[in-house]
Amino acid sequence: MIPFAPARRTLRHGALAAAALVALSAPAFAQSSVTVFGVLDVGVQQLTNGSKRVNLMSIDGLQTSRLGFRGTEDLGDGMSAGFHLEGALSPDTGGSSLDFRRRSTVSLAKKGVGELRLGRDYTPTFWSISRFNAFGTNGVGAASNLLYGFDGLSSSASTVVRANNSVGYHLPDTLGGVYGQAMFAFGEGSPGKYAGARIGYANKELDVAAAISSTENNAAGDNFKVANLGGSYRFGNARAMLLLHRSEQTTREQTGWSLGGTYTMGQTTLRASYTHANFSNSVGKVDYSGKQLALGTVYALSKRTSLYATISRVTNSGAAKYVIPGGSTVTAGQGSRGTEAGIYHSF
Amino acid sequence: MIPFAPARRTLRHGALAAAALVALSAPAFAQSSVTVFGVLDVGVQQLTNGSKRVNLMSIDGLQTSRLGFRGTEDLGDGMSAGFHLEGALSPDTGGSSLDFRRRSTVSLAKKGVGELRLGRDYTPTFWSISRFNAFGTNGVGAASNLLYGFDGLSSSASTVVRANNSVGYHLPDTLGGVYGQAMFAFGEGSPGKYAGARIGYANKELDVAAAISSTENNAAGDNFKVANLGGSYRFGNARAMLLLHRSEQTTREQTGWSLGGTYTMGQTTLRASYTHANFSNSVGKVDYSGKQLALGTVYALSKRTSLYATISRVTNSGAAKYVIPGGSTVTAGQGSRGTEAGIYHSF
Amino acid sequence: MIPFAPARRTLRHGALAAAALVALSAPAFAQSSVTVFGVLDVGVQQLTNGSKRVNLMSIDGLQTSRLGFRGTEDLGDGMSAGFHLEGALSPDTGGSSLDFRRRSTVSLAKKGVGELRLGRDYTPTFWSISRFNAFGTNGVGAASNLLYGFDGLSSSASTVVRANNSVGYHLPDTLGGVYGQAMFAFGEGSPGKYAGARIGYANKELDVAAAISSTENNAAGDNFKVANLGGSYRFGNARAMLLLHRSEQTTREQTGWSLGGTYTMGQTTLRASYTHANFSNSVGKVDYSGKQLALGTVYALSKRTSLYATISRVTNSGAAKYVIPGGSTVTAGQGSRGTEAGIYHSF
Repeated sequence: MIPFAPARRTLRHGALAAAALVALSAPAFAQSSVTVFGVLDVGVQQLTNGSKRVNLMSIDGLQTSRLGFRGTEDLGDGMSAGFHLEGALSPDTGGSSLDFRRRSTVSLAKKGVGELRLGRDYTPTFWSISRFNAFGTNGVGAASNLLYGFDGLSSSASTVVRANNSVGYHLPDTLGGVYGQAMFAFGEGSPGKYAGARIGYANKELDVAAAISSTENNAAGDNFKVANLGGSYRFGNARAMLLLHRSEQTTREQTGWSLGGTYTMGQTTLRASYTHANFSNSVGKVDYSGKQLALGTVYALSKRTSLYATISRVTNSGAAKYVIPGGSTVTAGQGSRGTEAGIYHSF
Repeated sequence: MIPFAPARRTLRHGALAAAALVALSAPAFAQSSVTVFGVLDVGVQQLTNGSKRVNLMSIDGLQTSRLGFRGTEDLGDGMSAGFHLEGALSPDTGGSSLDFRRRSTVSLAKKGVGELRLGRDYTPTFWSISRFNAFGTNGVGAASNLLYGFDGLSSSASTVVRANNSVGYHLPDTLGGVYGQAMFAFGEGSPGKYAGARIGYANKELDVAAAISSTENNAAGDNFKVANLGGSYRFGNARAMLLLHRSEQTTREQTGWSLGGTYTMGQTTLRASYTHANFSNSVGKVDYSGKQLALGTVYALSKRTSLYATISRVTNSGAAKYVIPGGSTVTAGQGSRGTEAGIYHSF
Repeated sequence: MIPFAPARRTLRHGALAAAALVALSAPAFAQSSVTVFGVLDVGVQQLTNGSKRVNLMSIDGLQTSRLGFRGTEDLGDGMSAGFHLEGALSPDTGGSSLDFRRRSTVSLAKKGVGELRLGRDYTPTFWSISRFNAFGTNGVGAASNLLYGFDGLSSSASTVVRANNSVGYHLPDTLGGVYGQAMFAFGEGSPGKYAGARIGYANKELDVAAAISSTENNAAGDNFKVANLGGSYRFGNARAMLLLHRSEQTTREQTGWSLGGTYTMGQTTLRASYTHANFSNSVGKVDYSGKQLALGTVYALSKRTSLYATISRVTNSGAAKYVIPGGSTVTAGQGSRGTEAGIYHSF
């Protein structure tokens, strides 16, 4: 740490002085415009898993509740630096201490070259689930209820959604609609070494993307592998989307797909999604497949605030135990039904 | 989640893009004016419980130290949406991770109709303790030292101050001085199902309110019930206040009252409060009653910053063991004395 | 708590109303200009401790990653109040919940008189390690790798860097270059009662300071004592600095020194530091000494953003096991080597 001149500043601002040590001239503490942002999404939910019914205050039916801090700095010559800190909230209880496990990154970007991003970030394979499904990964109708990992669980890999210790590269936005990213994450001795990439193309109507990843687990050959392919097409106020998703680890494999769409009329958006997942295990083969049908509506009170309602039904065949999360587990072949309505507010 | 058009935005702002999905048009990230607010209240305290004396750095002598984020959005037509996230701080140690258990709510309000509020919030019966006592629930002189729950403890219910999973309705401010609220909180299978209400009337001099609540505990008939009635009257620079408070659960009952007042001369406010609590248990009846006399002064350096000093004395009769919290427990009939002085700063 | 007049405000803003109770007139919620500030510092690191090598995503190579909130209020007449809340971040994982253990203080200051500061704060003896070393307490080259506590560990006292429950006084900045502070911290029954002071003098070229402290541990005579003396001298773009540091507790004693310098050419700053530590224990005397040589460069992209690279090598003689933290422990006499490069961004 490079000591610096005016002793008096240290006296009062000792803890902060450090931040100024690499500054070459005054003012030492030029303040950026930090943006404080977030989402609160709270509602009520009824879940019926098998024969058990529970009424709940639910959260995150439309978007995950969160609090974050972000900012960018123009470094001149097309370069910029940026940071993003974002953590989940549980507004139903106010509990779960704030951390920044949704995203914690520092970035350097250059126009026409792309962005280098270090820290904890979303994995490339995550994005398509959110992007090419009408309910994404939130609420009773989330495609992720069936598609994540295996058996409706997130698998033994911690990289289904995000990765720690990651170095990411994002293509610039100057490639005529082509977008993409690659990510590598250090294992640091523990399971978690990750490599993944995503490539896509989008114009006004069409958006398609493919992504693959591999995560090292404990044993050799125990890699958790994910691949997906998705697309959407917009025609007028309607948008149709299709997602194919596949997870694989040792003897286990799960394939799934989801077909859905949205239709917007003024302030109201209708949403529908049909999702299918089939799990297989080469050891002790069984029929394990589930389907989910979800219907919903979102009423926008403003750009930042919406009311929403969703109904969803999961049916299982064979040994399958897929459920809408939050309630009881089910026995093989039992189903799951969920209804929720809530308020979404972002800031 | 509703996919949206410009792919390039997702590339860079993937984690944020979700927040924009329900936006019907650009700009997707209109930033509200989030208010960051808080309190730091730190002082020094001497507590003598029975024969044991301890010197402490104390916090929250005048107000509870906190950090929060809040904002409102005008939805037009008299409607508004709002959020409130607030968590406690421990500035003496910087410890205890930040959560938002003081309050985590999202609201929809309409002029003349009232406010619907979802999340974790204060219970209606809590408010009168804070509102109709000169020391409220903070510091060595807090009325809550004696009035909360039973035996000076907060009882087995978690709803003495706040409730998780709550749906609240607040009357509008257009009822000629009448104010009030009702709250229901889901139990979600655990103890905690709560119902409560408060109704009051305030004008320039007078302020009166009554509140009741019931919280379901484990067993049938094991409800924790609270009722209180309070009022204050302002004449010139003086304000007198009276609070009656009652808690009940199975065989236990505690009744208490507090009489107090404040007198303001320029920057200085004098505070005094006398509180009495009597606990009874129909099983194994004993005399269990305590009194607390508290005197204090607050010197306002500004609207945001004050110095304060408080002395308080608790005396117990019979089996009672009421104490000023923070020190040792006492044996039956022993007393408790506390002196504190501190700095209150809000932002 | 002093009840206040307009009942309607309580209705909507109950949780906040408390903050207004000591306000003598409207507006009750004058908002200060809270500054949200922070650092994200993420890089990659290779550590070789003994024969074990590990590649890591590293953090805090130049400065400790942090998020904070601070503000000051002008009270008129040369007086001001202020607060400072600052917590560490782990941007590699987003983990470790946010608290404010880096600093949590409330202050009253007066021009020409000084500052009174209450809460958790840095200890006076900490500052010189940061101030009079080219790498301070961050990264593979940190002087603190060898100088903190004993055996390269932080000792049994929790006051090596900061103290809970502290009352601090800081000299005003009107003493012609003399600066200083004194701190007392309550033990509150646990080990940790602390007393320390620092006095220094700085002008445009010269900066010197001495500091001492004593922390009570469990047993009588078990005080953890620290003393240090440091200075720096600036000539043109170069700065040389020397630090002498000594820790003592019962039979243990560690003495160390560090010599270093920086040289700035345009946007680039070169850093070098040589640190020596010798630990002795009057019970079972052994040779236990280590040396660290660190070289580095910082390239400033702006006042707020830098790239940096550092290499460091620790060599041990006798029984010594000093290491660069983050990797394996070593056996007696083995060494430690570290290389890191990263991005520092402050806001």
